[in-house]
Amino acid sequence: MRMILLCGGGGKRLWPISNNTHSKQFIKVFDDGNGGYRSMLERAISEIREIDPDTQVTIAAGRVQTEEVRSQLGFDVSLTEEPSRRNTFPAISLAASYLKDHDKVDPQEPIVIFSVDSYADHSFYECLFSLGEIVENGTANLVLMGIEPDGPSDKYGYIIPASSDPVSAVREFREKPDIETARKYIEQEHALWNAGVFACRLEYLLKRADIVFGSSSYAYLIQHYPELKQISFDYAVVEKEPNIAVKRYNGTWADAGTWTSLATLLNNGDVGQVVRDDQCSDTLVVNDLDIPVLAMGIKGAVIAAGRDGILVAEKDRIPDLKSVVDKVWLEPRIIGKRYGGKEVLYRTDSSETSLLTIRAGSSVTIKTDVGVRKTLTVLRGAGEQMKPGTIFTIQDGEKWQINADTDIELIETMIEFEIEPEED
Amino acid sequence: MRMILLCGGGGKRLWPISNNTHSKQFIKVFDDGNGGYRSMLERAISEIREIDPDTQVTIAAGRVQTEEVRSQLGFDVSLTEEPSRRNTFPAISLAASYLKDHDKVDPQEPIVIFSVDSYADHSFYECLFSLGEIVENGTANLVLMGIEPDGPSDKYGYIIPASSDPVSAVREFREKPDIETARKYIEQEHALWNAGVFACRLEYLLKRADIVFGSSSYAYLIQHYPELKQISFDYAVVEKEPNIAVKRYNGTWADAGTWTSLATLLNNGDVGQVVRDDQCSDTLVVNDLDIPVLAMGIKGAVIAAGRDGILVAEKDRIPDLKSVVDKVWLEPRIIGKRYGGKEVLYRTDSSETSLLTIRAGSSVTIKTDVGVRKTLTVLRGAGEQMKPGTIFTIQDGEKWQINADTDIELIETMIEFEIEPEED
Repeated sequence: MRMILLCGGGGKRLWPISNNTHSKQFIKVFDDGNGGYRSMLERAISEIREIDPDTQVTIAAGRVQTEEVRSQLGFDVSLTEEPSRRNTFPAISLAASYLKDHDKVDPQEPIVIFSVDSYADHSFYECLFSLGEIVENGTANLVLMGIEPDGPSDKYGYIIPASSDPVSAVREFREKPDIETARKYIEQEHALWNAGVFACRLEYLLKRADIVFGSSSYAYLIQHYPELKQISFDYAVVEKEPNIAVKRYNGTWADAGTWTSLATLLNNGDVGQVVRDDQCSDTLVVNDLDIPVLAMGIKGAVIAAGRDGILVAEKDRIPDLKSVVDKVWLEPRIIGKRYGGKEVLYRTDSSETSLLTIRAGSSVTIKTDVGVRKTLTVLRGAGEQMKPGTIFTIQDGEKWQINADTDIELIETMIEFEIEPEED
Repeated sequence: MRMILLCGGGGKRLWPISNNTHSKQFIKVFDDGNGGYRSMLERAISEIREIDPDTQVTIAAGRVQTEEVRSQLGFDVSLTEEPSRRNTFPAISLAASYLKDHDKVDPQEPIVIFSVDSYADHSFYECLFSLGEIVENGTANLVLMGIEPDGPSDKYGYIIPASSDPVSAVREFREKPDIETARKYIEQEHALWNAGVFACRLEYLLKRADIVFGSSSYAYLIQHYPELKQISFDYAVVEKEPNIAVKRYNGTWADAGTWTSLATLLNNGDVGQVVRDDQCSDTLVVNDLDIPVLAMGIKGAVIAAGRDGILVAEKDRIPDLKSVVDKVWLEPRIIGKRYGGKEVLYRTDSSETSLLTIRAGSSVTIKTDVGVRKTLTVLRGAGEQMKPGTIFTIQDGEKWQINADTDIELIETMIEFEIEPEED
């Protein structure tokens, strides 16, 4: 069994902790059980490893996300990079062709495809494995996960199963209904939410890609990616398939993409360096900075502080955040890098001072342009010719390779400088 | 006429914008009329200069405040530095002896003594000059400013004048009363608040110092400062003097020492990079950082962000700030320096990365200890052998003098490094 994890999405709804490259699946706000925090992506991978350490997960990510994926999962993660944003079927096809051509996966192998848009409990990850097993057993060509609704919702499409059995054939799909209609679907037809989680054999995906794009070769798909038909997996595959099964999942499956939903998930807790008085209530405080947040008497609000800015919002106002944030949207200051990460501490028109983190075992080449000078000071950690206090300066196109033996922290000061006129 | 401005006080009530060295009179939150901000100290000096550019003001400050005073008022400000904290009479005596011994001021010269604890309008500064003129005319040995109360208050001592005339003899002084008693004082006796603003001849101050400390010599007072009797000016002087006049002041005189009073003074406005939606009300937002604060739907609160931390507090909770802030009180990250200022951007156990600002015309010697290395990168401005992009590294007791031709901004990375063992 192999898994494909779709990784994408923007960052405005969780500003200032997330941004375009640092989107919701990457933000580290979930308890890692060791006094630290982990992201939904890290959590998903760790849940899967816990069930089966050998199951390989390939991450299908957009170009802006790949550095962040490597930052969180390490340099040797299996990863396909979409050269541009198309839609789910091109992204899935690219990942499937990579499994075939690069990883030489048996075309009969079941493939489970999912995303980490929502927060789910451990049984969700067990259910992913069940989907693969159902495919293995030959029950259906395509197996979906159906989420048991915790109430009628107009935010999801619905799957109508043939029966209320744990695994059932799918009778039909219904578009997002209004709340009243949703209630009827659930009460009268055992309807389930379509979470976009499904499984099939690799061969099945490849055949569909052949039909839609004229090829299922990785070389072809990556080369022609920007011209591939923009088509969703639902439209390209699900709607064309008569033999679909659905497996019911009745655990937690909660939206984690807005501050209000995150406040519920995190039980209005504190993330990071936070002090609150006993008169604060119904308030989430997330602090990504290295200075304290003090909250006194605040009720029904979200306070979030990060390198990109500070948000203080009444929970009722959160739905407007995405549009209001355009007024404060700056060039991101927190940037995931394949070797670790970068946080901009201070920025002027012609300079940038940043904290760089380089993960143990990673290599990174620091480069400069003409007229640009960079000074790097090692604060912590060790690497080749490098220990705390080591300073190096490069400029005008020079490079410097860092090979990190342990996690390294550096301060980088980048400055555009005046080039001296050459003397005759 | 000469003036002595008493400059002191802590910083917890306006955390995180103020701290112990950066106390309330230094924080830049008042409109400077040019799109920028100025402090109460800068404002006071500018109001006085506007009335008479030649009047010299000597700042009486504690050791922790003197760098900040020089940062705001320039290197050539007249300043006495109290070696330790005693009380108002030692501080005033030290400043008076400095005027005599260093500035050779005529003992007959009127001296006006005041502080910038409160926010006052222009007529307050005009009134300061009137106090000096009343002394000059020989009306009384000591002249006080009496603030016309805008209501009964239990926060101030009261002056009972002999009449309601603009200038009157003082009949007596009364301790802080309860509100009901205060009301009677005001209604029946034209009572005034004692603001601790007064004037007398220099000679008068010196004689009192001779009596209390046995000397009015600057050399003696500075040398014996830590052992000088801790005594207030009220107790040492005012209570002993039968011939006191009071001048009524009826302009603005508002407390600026807490976030609630500052919110009223600043009309719940925005300071710094702030975006708020139209559903915010009765909320002050002060942002000293270079990232934006976004406030949505917040009502009746204070939001303040600075290098030392972030405060989000309901206004009703502000009176408790001083005690709560001890839980988040860290080593200050924003530090006024005589040559400009320092903001710590990132701090670890063994390193500190800061933004240094050096004012045009200032000189500063950057020093290092053994085992410490500092790298400085010039971001903006110019000085001797220095322009944007200039980098220098010093270590192990080395020094580097910076002479700033224009305002200079530098990034300093200070790191403790391991000293290599010497080879045999």
